[in-house]
Amino acid sequence: MNDRSPRTNGEAARGAADTLRALRQHKPLVQNVTNFVAMDISANLLLAVGASPAMVHAESEVAEFLRLADALVINVGTLSTDWVDAMGRAAGEAELLGVPWVLDPVGAGATAYRSRVLDRLLRLKPTVVRGNASEILALAGSSGSKTRGVDSTASAESALDAAKKLARNRRGTVAVTGAIDYVTDGERLLAIDHGHPMMTRVTGLGCALSALVAATLSVVEDPLWASAHALAILGIAGERAADGAAGPGSFRVRLLDCLYALDETALANPRISELAVA
Amino acid sequence: MNDRSPRTNGEAARGAADTLRALRQHKPLVQNVTNFVAMDISANLLLAVGASPAMVHAESEVAEFLRLADALVINVGTLSTDWVDAMGRAAGEAELLGVPWVLDPVGAGATAYRSRVLDRLLRLKPTVVRGNASEILALAGSSGSKTRGVDSTASAESALDAAKKLARNRRGTVAVTGAIDYVTDGERLLAIDHGHPMMTRVTGLGCALSALVAATLSVVEDPLWASAHALAILGIAGERAADGAAGPGSFRVRLLDCLYALDETALANPRISELAVA
Amino acid sequence: MNDRSPRTNGEAARGAADTLRALRQHKPLVQNVTNFVAMDISANLLLAVGASPAMVHAESEVAEFLRLADALVINVGTLSTDWVDAMGRAAGEAELLGVPWVLDPVGAGATAYRSRVLDRLLRLKPTVVRGNASEILALAGSSGSKTRGVDSTASAESALDAAKKLARNRRGTVAVTGAIDYVTDGERLLAIDHGHPMMTRVTGLGCALSALVAATLSVVEDPLWASAHALAILGIAGERAADGAAGPGSFRVRLLDCLYALDETALANPRISELAVA
Repeated sequence: MNDRSPRTNGEAARGAADTLRALRQHKPLVQNVTNFVAMDISANLLLAVGASPAMVHAESEVAEFLRLADALVINVGTLSTDWVDAMGRAAGEAELLGVPWVLDPVGAGATAYRSRVLDRLLRLKPTVVRGNASEILALAGSSGSKTRGVDSTASAESALDAAKKLARNRRGTVAVTGAIDYVTDGERLLAIDHGHPMMTRVTGLGCALSALVAATLSVVEDPLWASAHALAILGIAGERAADGAAGPGSFRVRLLDCLYALDETALANPRISELAVA
Repeated sequence: MNDRSPRTNGEAARGAADTLRALRQHKPLVQNVTNFVAMDISANLLLAVGASPAMVHAESEVAEFLRLADALVINVGTLSTDWVDAMGRAAGEAELLGVPWVLDPVGAGATAYRSRVLDRLLRLKPTVVRGNASEILALAGSSGSKTRGVDSTASAESALDAAKKLARNRRGTVAVTGAIDYVTDGERLLAIDHGHPMMTRVTGLGCALSALVAATLSVVEDPLWASAHALAILGIAGERAADGAAGPGSFRVRLLDCLYALDETALANPRISELAVA
Repeated sequence: MNDRSPRTNGEAARGAADTLRALRQHKPLVQNVTNFVAMDISANLLLAVGASPAMVHAESEVAEFLRLADALVINVGTLSTDWVDAMGRAAGEAELLGVPWVLDPVGAGATAYRSRVLDRLLRLKPTVVRGNASEILALAGSSGSKTRGVDSTASAESALDAAKKLARNRRGTVAVTGAIDYVTDGERLLAIDHGHPMMTRVTGLGCALSALVAATLSVVEDPLWASAHALAILGIAGERAADGAAGPGSFRVRLLDCLYALDETALANPRISELAVA
């Protein structure tokens, strides 16, 4: 085993500012098995926040590399046969080594192939599943779910029951992102009220968020709070980035700048609220 | 069949402003089987203009996904065996379903392999072929054509005859881009006089343009005018972006911002002229 | 054979300004067999400096395309079986045709697979190997070498002996980049004191630098000086880009702008010093 970043316990890490400081201090190595579109923004976002990204996905080395990694993200955005095999190996090794990992189920429900792949990955016990409402509805097997490509057609609220069901059945944490973001482990439910609509106009930002959740899992022990902090950090940076952005081009540039420059006072009181679970 | 965006007829859509409004309103889902370099800029450009990009290329799902898509672009920039098979399936399915599709013949003529692949794809009847002069010359089998990597060494004007021939032989529409852009369906010929030299200094912009043409095909019925509008929209945004850009870095950022913010008055009188066909 | 850019001899090209002028004038076609993350920034950086990038890696065409290319870069960042075969063919063809080529050994030492692949590529005689300290230490077989993902954990100075050994054993040129960059061919040693820490916060910049080294190899005959000039050009552009950048987002944008706008006076006296070789 390697000397992974020490994770503080959930209590101590309830401040998102502590989490950001821990990311900058420990610089967790995050292994990304992610889609081609999201690689650039994922790597740059991780670097901006202080983490160290590595895009390693060949079946021949994906498991061995994981021994160096502090966390793993698997994103099914652009699938193909050999990648799917590598995803399985990486996830299996993560479970074995106890490396926390995030599943990003891009486009869940869009094709039968995608559903089969996701079903197989879910059985390998992701620490956190992070998706939009359409994707979470599809994963939970909601018959009424409809997907339209990779953008959600449903509100995050409409996927709350699906998220709770998925979290309970899979004994993991589920994050549904939208205008308001939600995180649940089936017993607890947090709502994070940050972000900006411009974030939907930059490709790969959801995927990059999943990578950020993976990074936080390596410094915060409780997956529920780790996810909430990642959502708050990106959401608050997004709000600041939108202020003064002329469009999605400058917004993306400013988002990386704002993440890099985010001071801890900006994170002192994030709008994270604990809701009652039905 | 899905509820694809309704296409207005060619007459009504002759205003590029109408086309932009239709893109923003219908948010067509554009499936991209494109090269690795162009994915980021293609997706971000489609998002900036209001469309919804999906990069789906696995042979196992490329055809099924097409049932959700409003348009398809196939770009051969970075080839490999499994991708070529997926391209064939996607194009075949598009023809079957009547989904409009654009072929971007990046680097046509550079290698024998590339020529074989393009020959096969051309037989699957792309709605529009969009390339630079070298590529169109190579596709039309002009013996004098020379390619130098992926950048054109010929002027768009020198490829006009090749474009007309290709359009007639293939019963499709052909767009040749350069300092002035041309679109022809073999019977009609349009010249679009917009754009900026800085556009050649940003990688993947030609590819992203092909994706934009695909998007417009889903909202404008006449491929000739759909292409002309796409060229005018990107060209006018490019002119605005160049104004104040310090180099290709800021130009790319500004281009996305300008596309996002483009108001309809900017598109009221695009320099599109109909030329006589020899 | 094609009409490759004429290379001036080492003496005449000792001015980095001459090298930049030659790049802008000859626009060398650089073939990239590189990783998915670095494609965008590599292509955009080459375009900004006046070169013409082509990302061509399919085994079916990688060798044929090389006949058009002025230089080649092979980067092992994101490996997979079919890519490795294509890398071997490209490197073999480069040796045959006398096309200069650069090996970027991303993540050397991280996995056994990566070590095997790099060992095979090194035998195909790269003109220049460009890596960070951890990578060069791993390539030279230093038992004390440690890698942590793709970011170096060692200083460039600690890899100097390894670099010299590697250069001598492989009869090539080795560049180790860090706070100060070093280039050696085993007999001579240059130190280049340019750059900015912000460069480590943008993904793929090291890879893009390797592509720039490949471009300079096509216009400067002496690989040692070609590499030193590439390092100075990027380093000086980086210093200018950092001045006024709010973070890694705007830094990346400004870097491309600064490269594009770099005037020759900025390169008149680069801090390149020749050191004694032990």
